[in-house]
Amino acid sequence: MAEFKVIGKSYPRIESIDKVTGKAKYAGDKGYPELPEKFLYGKILGSPHHHAIIKSIDTSKAESLPGVKAVITYKDCPPVKIMEHEQRPTSPLEKHIRYLGEPVAAVAAETPEIAEEALSLIDVEYEVLPAVFDPEEATKPEAPKLWPDGNIADPGGRPIVIEWGDIEKGFASSDVIVEESFVHAAQPHAPLQLSICTAAWNGDQLTVWVSTQTPSRVWLDLSKLFSLPMSKVRVINKMTAGSQGYRYSERYMAIAALLSKKAHAPVKIELTRKEEIMLKSRYSLKQYIKAGAKNDGTLMSIHWRAFFDVGGYGHWIGGTIFWLDFPIEYIFPNARFEGYDVNVNLVTKRPFRSVPYPGLTFGIEQVIDELAEKVGMDPIEFRLKNTPRTGSEFPTGKLSTYDIEEVFRRGAEMIGWKEKWKGFGKPYYAKGSKRRAVGLAYTMYLGEPYGPEYGPDALLTVCPDGSIDLQISVSDIGTGTITAIAQVAAEEFGVSIEDIRVSWGDTSNGLFDLEGANASREAINGAWAVIEAAKDAKDKIARIAAPLLGVKPEEVEISNKKVFVKTAPEKSIPLNKVLKHSITGSGHAKAPPKGILIKDPVVQFADVEVDLETGEVTLLNHVVASDIGKALNPAFVECQLIGGATTSMGYAISEEPIIDKENRAFLNANYLDYKVLTSLDIPKTDVVIIESHEPYGPYGAKAGVGEQATANAAAAIANAIYNAIGVRIKEGPITPDRILKALGRG
Amino acid sequence: MAEFKVIGKSYPRIESIDKVTGKAKYAGDKGYPELPEKFLYGKILGSPHHHAIIKSIDTSKAESLPGVKAVITYKDCPPVKIMEHEQRPTSPLEKHIRYLGEPVAAVAAETPEIAEEALSLIDVEYEVLPAVFDPEEATKPEAPKLWPDGNIADPGGRPIVIEWGDIEKGFASSDVIVEESFVHAAQPHAPLQLSICTAAWNGDQLTVWVSTQTPSRVWLDLSKLFSLPMSKVRVINKMTAGSQGYRYSERYMAIAALLSKKAHAPVKIELTRKEEIMLKSRYSLKQYIKAGAKNDGTLMSIHWRAFFDVGGYGHWIGGTIFWLDFPIEYIFPNARFEGYDVNVNLVTKRPFRSVPYPGLTFGIEQVIDELAEKVGMDPIEFRLKNTPRTGSEFPTGKLSTYDIEEVFRRGAEMIGWKEKWKGFGKPYYAKGSKRRAVGLAYTMYLGEPYGPEYGPDALLTVCPDGSIDLQISVSDIGTGTITAIAQVAAEEFGVSIEDIRVSWGDTSNGLFDLEGANASREAINGAWAVIEAAKDAKDKIARIAAPLLGVKPEEVEISNKKVFVKTAPEKSIPLNKVLKHSITGSGHAKAPPKGILIKDPVVQFADVEVDLETGEVTLLNHVVASDIGKALNPAFVECQLIGGATTSMGYAISEEPIIDKENRAFLNANYLDYKVLTSLDIPKTDVVIIESHEPYGPYGAKAGVGEQATANAAAAIANAIYNAIGVRIKEGPITPDRILKALGRG
Repeated sequence: MAEFKVIGKSYPRIESIDKVTGKAKYAGDKGYPELPEKFLYGKILGSPHHHAIIKSIDTSKAESLPGVKAVITYKDCPPVKIMEHEQRPTSPLEKHIRYLGEPVAAVAAETPEIAEEALSLIDVEYEVLPAVFDPEEATKPEAPKLWPDGNIADPGGRPIVIEWGDIEKGFASSDVIVEESFVHAAQPHAPLQLSICTAAWNGDQLTVWVSTQTPSRVWLDLSKLFSLPMSKVRVINKMTAGSQGYRYSERYMAIAALLSKKAHAPVKIELTRKEEIMLKSRYSLKQYIKAGAKNDGTLMSIHWRAFFDVGGYGHWIGGTIFWLDFPIEYIFPNARFEGYDVNVNLVTKRPFRSVPYPGLTFGIEQVIDELAEKVGMDPIEFRLKNTPRTGSEFPTGKLSTYDIEEVFRRGAEMIGWKEKWKGFGKPYYAKGSKRRAVGLAYTMYLGEPYGPEYGPDALLTVCPDGSIDLQISVSDIGTGTITAIAQVAAEEFGVSIEDIRVSWGDTSNGLFDLEGANASREAINGAWAVIEAAKDAKDKIARIAAPLLGVKPEEVEISNKKVFVKTAPEKSIPLNKVLKHSITGSGHAKAPPKGILIKDPVVQFADVEVDLETGEVTLLNHVVASDIGKALNPAFVECQLIGGATTSMGYAISEEPIIDKENRAFLNANYLDYKVLTSLDIPKTDVVIIESHEPYGPYGAKAGVGEQATANAAAAIANAIYNAIGVRIKEGPITPDRILKALGRG
Repeated sequence: MAEFKVIGKSYPRIESIDKVTGKAKYAGDKGYPELPEKFLYGKILGSPHHHAIIKSIDTSKAESLPGVKAVITYKDCPPVKIMEHEQRPTSPLEKHIRYLGEPVAAVAAETPEIAEEALSLIDVEYEVLPAVFDPEEATKPEAPKLWPDGNIADPGGRPIVIEWGDIEKGFASSDVIVEESFVHAAQPHAPLQLSICTAAWNGDQLTVWVSTQTPSRVWLDLSKLFSLPMSKVRVINKMTAGSQGYRYSERYMAIAALLSKKAHAPVKIELTRKEEIMLKSRYSLKQYIKAGAKNDGTLMSIHWRAFFDVGGYGHWIGGTIFWLDFPIEYIFPNARFEGYDVNVNLVTKRPFRSVPYPGLTFGIEQVIDELAEKVGMDPIEFRLKNTPRTGSEFPTGKLSTYDIEEVFRRGAEMIGWKEKWKGFGKPYYAKGSKRRAVGLAYTMYLGEPYGPEYGPDALLTVCPDGSIDLQISVSDIGTGTITAIAQVAAEEFGVSIEDIRVSWGDTSNGLFDLEGANASREAINGAWAVIEAAKDAKDKIARIAAPLLGVKPEEVEISNKKVFVKTAPEKSIPLNKVLKHSITGSGHAKAPPKGILIKDPVVQFADVEVDLETGEVTLLNHVVASDIGKALNPAFVECQLIGGATTSMGYAISEEPIIDKENRAFLNANYLDYKVLTSLDIPKTDVVIIESHEPYGPYGAKAGVGEQATANAAAAIANAIYNAIGVRIKEGPITPDRILKALGRG
């Protein structure tokens, strides 16, 4: 185990003081380069229908309203379809409307009020089409079609299937079988910061100041939309107040750019809280799981079908790509996984922290508990019997470090499992209508960094005094990535973190990062890019310094602003005597070697109280335990694991969008009625970090810490609720009404 | 001669539209990154004495004035001396005051008025010391001493001397000898933009938004002053409205930073027009030239002594480094050059376009004309007999391309020399009191780019679509450098200039450029850096693309956003299929090989009218002719040559600071009384560009075009005036009173 000077220490975020003093710049804030002082206000007209074709649209009344500077409809959109990665290729405004609230037209005006009024003056005649909302229903031949090639958004219009062995034989040789179905509601992201984009043209150069976690994707999409070289488009954003996975390239950003171009003036669009909650959401899903095991606890067979609602424009990559890890988190000799990404007449679904995991684990982890209960085994023992270990081999590769036993052991110790576990369906506390119980859930989470094709580019410049300016195309959505990356640069050069300046959040340096702050890999991707850039810069410096020391370049080392001879460290020259100008090294993200699987085992333990009278669930205590390889900055890891679990707690018991489909109304698009948990609802959450020192990770670290705790907190809570009340709830979130109904009191 | 696609074409400046529409950002303008919206106003108390020691200074009254947030004196300055390069190492505020108006104390207050009032409340008790103003007088032992090591600022307190042969023997063998002395007044730079610096601290990070042509020097100085790593200091400036050579690292910038630190708030200092004209100036000088020639026109010997007034803090590098080229512009078998940089009790002198040339050529070119007149030769013929040619060898190296004959021939043709030249002291037109005549002057100007030790660093990033983002540490002080550099990048990649974005003017990327926009080498330095960075990036791309084309990296070429096989150009792949992320190459400025001298021969022809009654000089026509190797952008070269000549025309006939030394008053520190020529005074100026295709320059180009025309326009005008009136004026500028005095009518 290597000893590090800077890595592994809990430095505060370099932007912390700016954040708490209000100096930090979020999109829309003053102080960004070139941000125009004056701008028009953009507003978007949302569709009043779930599914419709625009027959005619008349904007003349809106256009003649004083103060209105531009109105756009689908007719103003270039014939270039964008957003290919997360969504079906689409125009910013479409003629075919596929969900309630979908952008139909947009206005730029001198004030927000005028813009709103202008929206009401746009006359649209719709041909209303029949709508479909259930992703399983939508796969049927008779279902209304959203797309000419059908509603299944997976390649070829067919589900993604992974299978091996013979599931029927597997079930036949099982002693116990569980067959269940689960549904889980969508989950709006609902972060604090409203989506905001200011777009301004200067000749044929476009700049946007925008809340995004993937500046490079916005950059690429806008350059494609307007057929401009990327060097003519600039995307600026430093701070983001929550992102949760959805701040990609979005239609409202392109709409702001189109309005600005038409109005010949900068245009700012800031979504309302209602739009924010209504228009951005995690997939809802419906799944069927049948699994069998031997009486000794050996898993024998699984048949798992899941239907993801990806909304009007979601693409296949949205959900089912994540089947990739579920097939190996437990070892089944016979298995069939079927994933359907289905377009329905609901808002386009987007990635959200841990993407499909919370819903999938909500199903599988209840099924696993049921199997354990049927064979009479402890849920930890049952899982450890069926989970892979470090070195386990799969058709896709060999599992690298995976210290799952330690994760279970120390997590259980932290929640007090020994004292509180009374068996399945049995509370450890029962008084009046109150029942308390613990439950757990496991999952395997993605721990690989991306390769250079998706990860960031880094430029590390050593200034003539030996201090370092680092440019990197990562985004920091509040996770500490920038600070972790500064730690990497400091570690590589043996200097203090005070010697590192990091520049990010402006695409004008040309550095690219296709995935951005996606899949919680940004710090690890960035770490590899910086390590590679540091090596490049050190090689260049060595070539300059070696002759001054009378040795060969490979014989020198650089640390603490000095170049010295490896074998005779007393022979050294300060960097400021070596460098007459700055030296830059460049680097890119790095994937593990082919055939190496880096995964994080994550186990969560929930301790809950259920009131049998009211159906109310109180979260008492929570533990997240995971093997994350190595914590680059332990405080950040702890924050991410707590924050991740928290996100899943609301998913477990309270967060649910309510849509009156008949009356075409979204009923709870505000913080009062849409129940995000508050600090009063969140239990004490303890974090157990296991460091297995992953040999294929930077400094031993694995990726994924920002999301893995979101993956299965809800599942742990569901299992705990079952243990408290003895009845399983298969529809999420597990709200009081569902509990009462399950208890026969609804 | 290579054929270029983009180089050699007169593209408009990429910032032109921004400039004419008012969008371009000058220091102090809104729209710069992080620029604070609110700031305090800084004002500086100037010394009322030429030479004094501060005995005591009481700021208590000033500090207690409501609205005053900080007052600083020399006691607040860190014990770190900065500005080592152009000036004697100094503190921002000194206890020992060496010139009238020198900063004594400074105030930051809520309004400029309060700050001014606070200045008047600072009580300073001075011990007044005797002062010396004449640089020759100041070298004498009995002169008042400004510095403990004496007033001669040259190394070791001794003049710089270059000599060979035996000048006395040379004079003895001469048929004719001319011995003259000349003086020339200082010349304030007086550009339109007032010096401005906003300084703000964020914790221990300092940012300045400042009008400078050397951001890296400001960066380095401030990091030294505050003992900060360079990565904690950021200098921002994009546009500069004239600089003329003086916007280096200046004391007022450090004062703004000190005030800001003490006041815990951003501080902006903008100098007044009076301060601007009073405090920044080209050297005044006094020189003695004795030269001899044979009757056949062969120069035999020269003894040239020059005393530069470098003001209170000027350093040796200020003036006499430029002796370096004068020894080889004519071929003297015997020579002695003596240069004195002398500290006197006048404002510190600074570089100004063409630095000491205008004053030195004002002397030497009159002497050369006098010699030609004495031996009865045409001034062109006389010069061509004594000047070097392409390939001439000197102890310092071999002169590369130097097409001096063509320069004389085509310049003379353009001014109509044949028609207007009537002999020395003879006008071509005489009517009433009006006399018209032509005159010329030659000089050799520095055409070498700097090496990597002084020039800029470049990072060229090829985006995934093949367009290019270029980061470079050059400054553009209005000369077109940025556009020329974009042309270089476009040329190297065979793309349109529209595909190039250039980022500059912000040190946070770590790129360094010690000299900045100095000595008119920036475009050429930058061109080399970009060429090197392009090569690096192309090599990297070739390594990725070659396997896709089934060839070796050295077999591919990149042009027009495609990679193709050199020998089979039909085998190609578009760059956007090759690149999944961005690729960056890095490069640095490049000097010519040791022993290669790159010089620009520059000849100017003046056509003037003198009114014998009033002494008034009217400039009728002017020609600048020079061999500049290759014009990267001919329109820019033309502008620079015209602008350079213009700067020297005011130096010739009107610009002179007037100081009442007795009453310690600068009398004409405003545009009304300090006579910068206006567009009404400037004659039609024609430019003759000779392109010798310098093999050691980028694309054949030489450096220096921004300054060479400033070098000898005044000399040409002086010679023309002599030819018009038959009397030599040896004191510059040649104002009407000096002409009348010389004519015996003063």
